[in-house]
This record gives sequence, structure tokens and C-alpha cells, in this order.
Amino acid sequence: MQEILLARRVDGQITAADFEARETAGPSESHDGLVGTRTTHISLDPYLALRMRKGIPDAGNGPPYPIVGRTIGEVMEPGASDFRRGDHVLGFGRWASEDWRLAADLRKVDLDAAPPEAHLGIAGHSGFTAWLGVRLAGLRSGECFVVSGAAGAVGSVAGQLAKRSGCRVVGIAGGREKASWVVEALGFDACIDHRRPDFAEALAASLPGGADIHFENVGAAMLDPMLGLMKRRGRMMLCGLMQHYQNADPVALRNFRAILERSIRIEPFSIYDHEELASTARNELIAEVGAGGLRFKCSTTHGLDHVPEAFVAMLEGRGIGKHIAVVG
Amino acid sequence: MQEILLARRVDGQITAADFEARETAGPSESHDGLVGTRTTHISLDPYLALRMRKGIPDAGNGPPYPIVGRTIGEVMEPGASDFRRGDHVLGFGRWASEDWRLAADLRKVDLDAAPPEAHLGIAGHSGFTAWLGVRLAGLRSGECFVVSGAAGAVGSVAGQLAKRSGCRVVGIAGGREKASWVVEALGFDACIDHRRPDFAEALAASLPGGADIHFENVGAAMLDPMLGLMKRRGRMMLCGLMQHYQNADPVALRNFRAILERSIRIEPFSIYDHEELASTARNELIAEVGAGGLRFKCSTTHGLDHVPEAFVAMLEGRGIGKHIAVVG
Repeated sequence: MQEILLARRVDGQITAADFEARETAGPSESHDGLVGTRTTHISLDPYLALRMRKGIPDAGNGPPYPIVGRTIGEVMEPGASDFRRGDHVLGFGRWASEDWRLAADLRKVDLDAAPPEAHLGIAGHSGFTAWLGVRLAGLRSGECFVVSGAAGAVGSVAGQLAKRSGCRVVGIAGGREKASWVVEALGFDACIDHRRPDFAEALAASLPGGADIHFENVGAAMLDPMLGLMKRRGRMMLCGLMQHYQNADPVALRNFRAILERSIRIEPFSIYDHEELASTARNELIAEVGAGGLRFKCSTTHGLDHVPEAFVAMLEGRGIGKHIAVVG
Repeated sequence: MQEILLARRVDGQITAADFEARETAGPSESHDGLVGTRTTHISLDPYLALRMRKGIPDAGNGPPYPIVGRTIGEVMEPGASDFRRGDHVLGFGRWASEDWRLAADLRKVDLDAAPPEAHLGIAGHSGFTAWLGVRLAGLRSGECFVVSGAAGAVGSVAGQLAKRSGCRVVGIAGGREKASWVVEALGFDACIDHRRPDFAEALAASLPGGADIHFENVGAAMLDPMLGLMKRRGRMMLCGLMQHYQNADPVALRNFRAILERSIRIEPFSIYDHEELASTARNELIAEVGAGGLRFKCSTTHGLDHVPEAFVAMLEGRGIGKHIAVVG
């Protein structure tokens, strides 16, 4: 079978040259009882970059290192499971054309209810992350909600959910195309392109009374100006720090003092601490997507060979919405 | 009357040369109805440095600028109030030998229940700050509690209160004398001198399982190593950033990423948001001090002329406990 592996732990920026494609071993007797799948979709997520860095503990299985992220596959061999040949299942899997896993680590997805990209994106872990952050923030109608990475898989959903809670929603996104999409297609009240030379001034102008809640996906370079625009006793939901994943050097926060001066609560959260809410979130999100109440977009790549460059493009902020590779 | 004023807004480190003593105007007819007091005690607090910096909005009354902090005075002229000559009252007042204020801005203190330094310190705003932070942290018995500025007016009380909640308490303080006092007199389980060359290693060794709660009084240079020693889902009560007050340049936080990676909630708090709890806190703290359940120490200076140097010494971390000037 074909597999994409990480050729080496990376110190600086991750590039497509850090990956290699190989023919790796197919099923053997040790796969007995496991579910054999043919990979159809691979989810490309910023957090994967964290595990590609130097200094990450090594399980002793590389280089080259297998890469494990969320995938959807079609069941070819049900093994000892209740799955049936042709079922589509979602779970953590390798960047490979095939996979063998424990049935308990897989979940059947209903492709009649939503397409595969929705199961990995808006109704998957990206959507759940947005749903959870908005829920934990305890939004009140009329509050001002800011989200960075507003055109991304998480930010685009978070902003729409905040809008439905009655908030005024301002996005931050990289590039005019993204900013336009967020306002015109998703209904945000405003979206500021952080590549504008007058970004800080434009952001301040879009928040005349300051922000009640900030939903952070990017990191220190976005946070520093944002901290100065929070209302007193504002809340910052810390979801991701994409900028810090792609840079080996930690990005320092210069405006830290504002956290005390404005009494801004910083609340990091993780879906892994709230797995009991996952199916509630999934059902709500699938229903909303079906009813047309939530919109999403994907940046899709075709072919396993193109996964490394698609992954790097995602890290660099290219493309809109959820990044997916269709490989089957 | 004699008064200490700020000669100029300060850009770098605040020094005693930034202050000047002057003979200023005494009472006039415009003082009619105000309470006239003779200042007996001045509270020296880090937050006052914030208002001495360049860039602070100017009310149009300087230079030189009057300095207003917490003081205790003896009532000389009750004016239109219910106070009686000889009562001792606490309120915001000038660094001056006398003062005239509205009765509504003053509170009578009972010197039979506790001495003046306790009313300004452990049973005053310093103690209330410690009490509030410990209360908001929601301590559970057996948790590990770390406090920086452990020998200071707030940290020394916070650590004792955490100890009474059943926590294991580790302090961080500047110098061996402070660290010894915190362990021997206050009963902390450990206290690490941050001036030790091996500070980070010693702190890590004192926290084998990591910290559940960190109570921060100092700022980024303490916080950076501490963030790496927090347990997952730890809580950081952000009380003060003394280091940032004394430096004109904000101190950057380098280890910000750890906040997300360990899911550490950052919770700034201020006594001004919880004034409804002030008298409860005060009564509890006075009772504890009277019963010998809480200990405190003061660094006391005598004479109004010596207030500037005592204030600078406090900012530089010299002296133990609450800093007070006795001026009456």
C-alpha cells in the first residue's frame, strides 16, 4: 500500500520536502481480527504540525515516522467487528491508502445525513471544537464576539454559532477573499484582513465598544493587538495557536499586562476534556447543516501524493474552510 | 503641611529622586464640612507605581503630582460627619501630614481589635486580595498551591489561607531570609529563593507532581518557568504583576503556548469587582489574626521624609511583609 511518512522531525517551518511517499507493508497475519479499510478522506489539521516537531517524544518507530490523523475509510475487511463491507468509518488513521484498526477505535458515519467532508469538518472535530468553545464562553445576546482564523474550519463555525446566539460577530482572517466570504456567505458583521498594513487600526475601528469575547485560533501576533481591544472582564476562549505550531520558536506575548489590567479571563479548552458532549454537538451540527442554518466550505486536494503540499498550504493559511484530501 | 509629591512622570525605574517634599497649603474655607485628619500611617503598595508612569492620563494637577494611596489618620476636625475627634479613619489620602476628605470616603478603624498596620495590611486591602484570590480559586484539600511574592503583604496571607484549606503550599520569594521566614514562621511546605542560580531546577524539584494552582504576584519572568510546572487543567490566579509595574517596557511572556497545551485557566481578579465581600473578609481576617491563626510581619519606616526611599525599597523587593510608613 502507499503511505506518506514524515522523513524527519522538523526544526523550522514544515515544508513538503519533509515528507516522503513509500510503498509499505500490507496486511499480514497480525492484522487478524482488525478492521481493514481503504482510506477515502484525510483531514488536514493544524495540530498535526505539533507532533512533527523536534523534541517530541519518539515512540521508537522512525524515521521515517508514520503520521496519524483523522481519516474516513471504506470497510474492506470487517474482521471480528459488526461493521459491514462498504460501511464508511471515521477514526484516527495513517496517511495511507489502507489501514487496519480496532473496531472500538472506529465510528460508522452516515453519508446520507452529511457528506464525508462535513463528517470530518463542520459536524466532526472542527465543528465540535467551535460548538464547545462557544458553549463554554456562555454568550449573551448583544455581546461582541471576535474570532481569529475566521475563514478556517473552526473559526467559520464559531462565528456562525455566535451570530445565532445574538452576538455581534467580527472575524479576523488572512486576505481579502477570506474576509469577504466570511461576511457575505456566513453573515459575520465584519471581518478584518490581518494582512492589511493598517490591521490594528481597522480592527480597533470595527470594535468601537471593545470585545466581550475573543475566540483565539492563531496566537501571540494576533493576541497582542486583540488584548488591547477587550472590554474589562472580557473572556478569551483559547482554542488553538496555529502560529505557534508552525514556528519552532515560541512567539512571545508582549501585551501580557493587559490581561491583569483589564481582568481578562483566559480559558483554554479542549474537546478531549468534554467527550461526553461530542454526540450532542454532532447531532445539532448535522441538523443545522441539513436545515441550511450553518454553512461551510472545504479546500479539497485529490490524491495521496498531494497530501504533503496540501498540508503545508493549510499551515500557511492558504485556502478557505476545512482542508480535506480525497484519496480513495 | 508637609507633603510628598511626584516631581515628574517616570519612564524607567522609579527612584527616590523622582519625589519631592514640599510645604503645601493647609485647610481653607473650601474645606468646610470635610473631615480633617492628621495622617498617622501610609500604606506602601506596588500598584501605586502604575500611576507614576509616563503616559498615565493627567488630571491637570501637576507636576508635581499629588500621590494618593491608602492611609490611616486621626480625626482632628469632624466637619459635618459623625466621626469624633481622636477617631482613627482609613481611606484614600495624600502622602501628606494632614488631609481633608468627605466622610463617605472614610471608614473608622477599631485599633482595639487590631493595630493600624493590620488594618492596612492583613485585615486591609492586602489581606482581602489574598482572601479573595484563594476563595475564587476554589481550593480542594490535597491540591498543590504555589504563590509568588510569598513573603509579601498579599502572598504571605494567600499561602497561609491555602495551607488552612488543606493544600500543600510552595512559595517563591527573593532571598534566603524571606524564604526561611515563609517556611519557619508561616508554615509553608517549601519556599524557593528566585535569586538562586538554579531557581528553575529547585522549583521543579519542589513540585514533583506539578502545581494545581498558581497565585501570581510578580509577572512574566516568574510565570514563564511556572507555566511549565503546572498540571494539566491547572488554574492561575492573576493577582498582580509587580515586575511589570516597575519596568516601563512590558515584560513579554515567552512560554505562552503552555497555557493552551496544558489547558491552564488564567483568572485575573480584583477586589474592586467584589467589594460586597470586603467586610466578610475583614471580619474573618481580624478574627484569625486575633486567634493567632494567621501571622504577619511589617516593614516599617518612620517619618514622611523617608516615604520615597521606603516605597522604592518595596518596589525593589527589599523588606518582608507589608510595607508601612508611620508618619504621625
